[in-house]
Amino acid sequence: MIKITFPDGSVREFPKGTTSMQIAESISSRLAQEVIASSVNGQTWDLTRPIDEDSTVSLLKWDDEEGKHAYWHSSAHLMAEAVQELYPHAKFGIGPAIENGFYYDIDFGDTPVKDADFPAIEKKMKELIANKEAIVRKSISKSDALKMFGERNEGYKVELINDLADGTITTYTQGSFTDLCRGPHLPNTSYIKAVKILSAAGAYWRGDEKRKQLTRLYGITFPKQKMLDDYLTLLEEAKKRDHRKIGKELELFAFSQNVGQGLPLWLPRGTQLRLRLEDFLKKIQKQFDYDQVMTPHIGAKQLYVTSGHYAKYGKDSFQPIHTPEENEEFLLKPMNCPHHCEIYKVIPRSYKDLPLRLAEFGTVYRYEQSGELHGLTRVRGFTQDDAHIFCTPDQLKAEFLKVVDIIFIIFKALDFENFEAQISLRDPENKEKYIGSEENWQKAEAAIIEACQEKGLPARIELGEAAFYGPKLDFMVKDALGRRWQLGTIQVDYNLPERFGLEYTGADNQKHCPVMIHRAPFGSMERFIAVLIEHTAGKFPLWLTPDQVVIMPISEKFNDYAHRVAAFLKRRDIRTLIDDRNEKIGRKIRDNELKRIPYLLVVGEKEAESEEVSVRKQGEGDKGSMKITTFADQIAEEAEKMMNAWNK
Amino acid sequence: MIKITFPDGSVREFPKGTTSMQIAESISSRLAQEVIASSVNGQTWDLTRPIDEDSTVSLLKWDDEEGKHAYWHSSAHLMAEAVQELYPHAKFGIGPAIENGFYYDIDFGDTPVKDADFPAIEKKMKELIANKEAIVRKSISKSDALKMFGERNEGYKVELINDLADGTITTYTQGSFTDLCRGPHLPNTSYIKAVKILSAAGAYWRGDEKRKQLTRLYGITFPKQKMLDDYLTLLEEAKKRDHRKIGKELELFAFSQNVGQGLPLWLPRGTQLRLRLEDFLKKIQKQFDYDQVMTPHIGAKQLYVTSGHYAKYGKDSFQPIHTPEENEEFLLKPMNCPHHCEIYKVIPRSYKDLPLRLAEFGTVYRYEQSGELHGLTRVRGFTQDDAHIFCTPDQLKAEFLKVVDIIFIIFKALDFENFEAQISLRDPENKEKYIGSEENWQKAEAAIIEACQEKGLPARIELGEAAFYGPKLDFMVKDALGRRWQLGTIQVDYNLPERFGLEYTGADNQKHCPVMIHRAPFGSMERFIAVLIEHTAGKFPLWLTPDQVVIMPISEKFNDYAHRVAAFLKRRDIRTLIDDRNEKIGRKIRDNELKRIPYLLVVGEKEAESEEVSVRKQGEGDKGSMKITTFADQIAEEAEKMMNAWNK
Repeated sequence: MIKITFPDGSVREFPKGTTSMQIAESISSRLAQEVIASSVNGQTWDLTRPIDEDSTVSLLKWDDEEGKHAYWHSSAHLMAEAVQELYPHAKFGIGPAIENGFYYDIDFGDTPVKDADFPAIEKKMKELIANKEAIVRKSISKSDALKMFGERNEGYKVELINDLADGTITTYTQGSFTDLCRGPHLPNTSYIKAVKILSAAGAYWRGDEKRKQLTRLYGITFPKQKMLDDYLTLLEEAKKRDHRKIGKELELFAFSQNVGQGLPLWLPRGTQLRLRLEDFLKKIQKQFDYDQVMTPHIGAKQLYVTSGHYAKYGKDSFQPIHTPEENEEFLLKPMNCPHHCEIYKVIPRSYKDLPLRLAEFGTVYRYEQSGELHGLTRVRGFTQDDAHIFCTPDQLKAEFLKVVDIIFIIFKALDFENFEAQISLRDPENKEKYIGSEENWQKAEAAIIEACQEKGLPARIELGEAAFYGPKLDFMVKDALGRRWQLGTIQVDYNLPERFGLEYTGADNQKHCPVMIHRAPFGSMERFIAVLIEHTAGKFPLWLTPDQVVIMPISEKFNDYAHRVAAFLKRRDIRTLIDDRNEKIGRKIRDNELKRIPYLLVVGEKEAESEEVSVRKQGEGDKGSMKITTFADQIAEEAEKMMNAWNK
Repeated sequence: MIKITFPDGSVREFPKGTTSMQIAESISSRLAQEVIASSVNGQTWDLTRPIDEDSTVSLLKWDDEEGKHAYWHSSAHLMAEAVQELYPHAKFGIGPAIENGFYYDIDFGDTPVKDADFPAIEKKMKELIANKEAIVRKSISKSDALKMFGERNEGYKVELINDLADGTITTYTQGSFTDLCRGPHLPNTSYIKAVKILSAAGAYWRGDEKRKQLTRLYGITFPKQKMLDDYLTLLEEAKKRDHRKIGKELELFAFSQNVGQGLPLWLPRGTQLRLRLEDFLKKIQKQFDYDQVMTPHIGAKQLYVTSGHYAKYGKDSFQPIHTPEENEEFLLKPMNCPHHCEIYKVIPRSYKDLPLRLAEFGTVYRYEQSGELHGLTRVRGFTQDDAHIFCTPDQLKAEFLKVVDIIFIIFKALDFENFEAQISLRDPENKEKYIGSEENWQKAEAAIIEACQEKGLPARIELGEAAFYGPKLDFMVKDALGRRWQLGTIQVDYNLPERFGLEYTGADNQKHCPVMIHRAPFGSMERFIAVLIEHTAGKFPLWLTPDQVVIMPISEKFNDYAHRVAAFLKRRDIRTLIDDRNEKIGRKIRDNELKRIPYLLVVGEKEAESEEVSVRKQGEGDKGSMKITTFADQIAEEAEKMMNAWNK
């Protein structure tokens, strides 16, 4: 008999060689239907693998990341098996699970697969599912593995095996398909209920552009057809809301290969939007007694040696900038904190000066591989809505809670009411990854946990997600499509103040070291605006949107009147366009609705005579006619009310 | 006889061997008294040097830069002669004229000169002046020169002579002092009327820190004692107004060796001031239909190869930034124009879209040697209030004039009413220093000259001062001390649009290349604020100053009332401080006047009872008591009126 310990701490005995599936069945048949894989002593295992010694076991379902991972990994094998049946000459590279689904890199030889071929592959996958093929794990020697894959003429696999250390190698087999694989996998193919091949793309073998380009076939599977249908709908909707697409349509931002990849150019309308968001936060920060500062975008290398950033990230960052004649090295600043610490040090500080809240829309530069770049969400240069609060330990909790208040104000104002909080602590197994003393870490972690409790803010605790200098509270918002995005962050830091030798004179006339809070409610302007675009599908709130009103004369005869109305609205600070193209009014309405302009004003003879405008509201249609002044009053009031709601 | 041509084109004959002094005397004895040197065929000559062939001659007076230069150069020799008499063992390095006065690098051996020794040197200089010593030019061979200075044990001079090419060398002698010198010089020492030794500093021989440190003795001289007195008063006043000193006192900005020299940190009050100036310009630009954009602070190196900047400045700039894994090179951007050109190219442009006015407060980085850095006026990172106007050739003049209007608005609003304009054209002798075609340069230069004529703007023309890509109009303001500062600039550029391949579709449906105007009314925020500080001595206009009002309770008993008044004023957006230190009211008034706060409010029993404040205005003293609301109305109105005067 062996002892199995469960996540809740309970212990039960089972015969030696019991499988996780048998354990699940012993608990309930419903559970047995839901489990996908198991975690045995911290490693993910096949459900069918016998357990031979006392172990800690956790049964994994679809909702567990590792469970889903095994499910999609088996689906990759299933897709490969189907391809092998349909394309006997296909050779296989690697086929992992990814964040959403899986892919397999396949060498199709002279007949690369096309989108039109996907249904046939899906059909074959469904046949293999119906066969309920067992997925069988086997341990073999390296030489046997080389022999087997060599005989099958699977050169890519042979290359992979050659790179492995000597010893036992595992394979997984279902039907006629055998793969070199560490596993784990589903017990059999029938677990997979709904399949979809999503796309095909070129991918160099082992990412090396000098080697052969294979076809990377992407797919996704689900345990229910409804889940696949929902996913495909979401994908369709997400494609429409892709911030890169809308950013281009609305002329918000652009990238230029000549400037450099991952370095956004903010076009006039995007700049307006961004500056309006910045001004909004500045107003809130003024209310909360923040001080704006401005610091350079480079700093002497030593600054980041002091902060510890250089030791941790230096090699993988933009490399140092040398001066031509003097022996100096500068770095593009990857964060603003060292500069703000230097500002703290400019003037001797007393406890009476604290808290000192230094805020900066600070543009920072971090190297990302070009393959990792994605629109505004993964860039090489971005502007943090950064602030550093220097305070006494006594002030820490109150200051922390005030930052939470600011984040709540922003989420409310921008309609991100659906969010989760996550407390990111150290990885207790890997403390050497972090700088600073045990005592400082304990104080900082306790401060965040207590503050959340005091605020009644439910927060998930994640180990190993802290910044290297301190723990943090992160906010994940759910957008209109239910996708989660990490936005605001608050970090507590006892370490950098020590490393930079910051001090203040206390009421006791002694020198003390302040505590530091790092915070960015938006996270970065780039990322926040990307999320806002996808959340709103580009239909920004009235107070924020670059163009609030477009005036459309029904014919050229009324262009003059349109211009007079526009001039009037502009004097009222209402952001107004005129569409005086020589087009039919229906066309003008359609085009301007695509531009997501909230108010569309039609003007013709009747309106010109009565000093009126005929109002259409985006998404709501015709609102009837009204006096220009009435309209101006209404929308000025509407925008003002939205923008200042937080301050009432 | 030889023919002498004068600047006005007139020609007169003189005997061969006539000197410039004789020419001056032949015109008028008054002129002969005023001339200092002469320009003979473009070279500056001694007045006493015989002219042996037909020449173009221009007589130089104190007000001519070259005249002043000769005057101060002779003064440097005079100071050296005095030093030689007083310190027989002193050895001489070099002694040039500089922008204000002159210096001489001298090796005083074991007894370096001290400030207390200056009067004795001045006294000796005055004696030598009274002697009316002739200053005599002599041409000798290199070997004779080596022999002469060798015998005198002047090792520094011997080293300098050794570095000269073989041939004739000139020396100048007055009394017992002979110097190796190209000249020109005054006829005799009596031209120098007023002398002052200003300071002594260490200076490495030939700027090489591995060689001996000499004493650099600075002096200045004038043809009238009153001019010296005025200059010394100005120097004293300038010291008080030094923006580095006031910037520190008012906590506006700071530098940190840890961040890097020449990289300003904007402290909270300086940031407020700067953002207020930026907002002011943004408001004006909105009125003039500018579009704000934002671009990254780095760009791919190729961008600056395209612009021509790399070929011209690359070697002397901050060196390229490499990425760790990909073969990329970026540069810190030294200017914003290439980025704005890339924004222009994002969208196909039609003549209907022009002019396109892209504005950015763009922070740029330019390497300066650390010895050249000076406060905010010579930095390594600075923010240009930049804009680029892309227009058709037809629109150029009108656009140029609108920019002039913006600059006038700013100068008026900030009380820089005393300014000069300078048209900076190519150096016609060195056309290879500039990029672009002859035709483009001619068009661009003509556009500026015509626009100035049309505006009735008198402008001095300077050859050789153009940017390498186009000519410009620069504005020099005179500050309150009469010192000239270069601020705003407007440049016309036909070249970069061609190099970047910019185009628009004309009314003729053909592709055309736009013209580009570069402009920065402030020049840079750093430089402008430095000049503003020195111009106002830190007493900024009410609308701009970081703190507008300070409330000073006469004793602790009235702290509550002071806080209530402050809260009221803050709600009215009046920037208010409280000085509730436990100090006498006289001390509080003195301290806050030093902080240059425009309004000082005293509150005590009488004020608290009647809801009043007792008002003192900076520089004007007691203004009597008034109701808080009346005071708030008055200063809100005063600030508003100043800030918006331009828009009436």
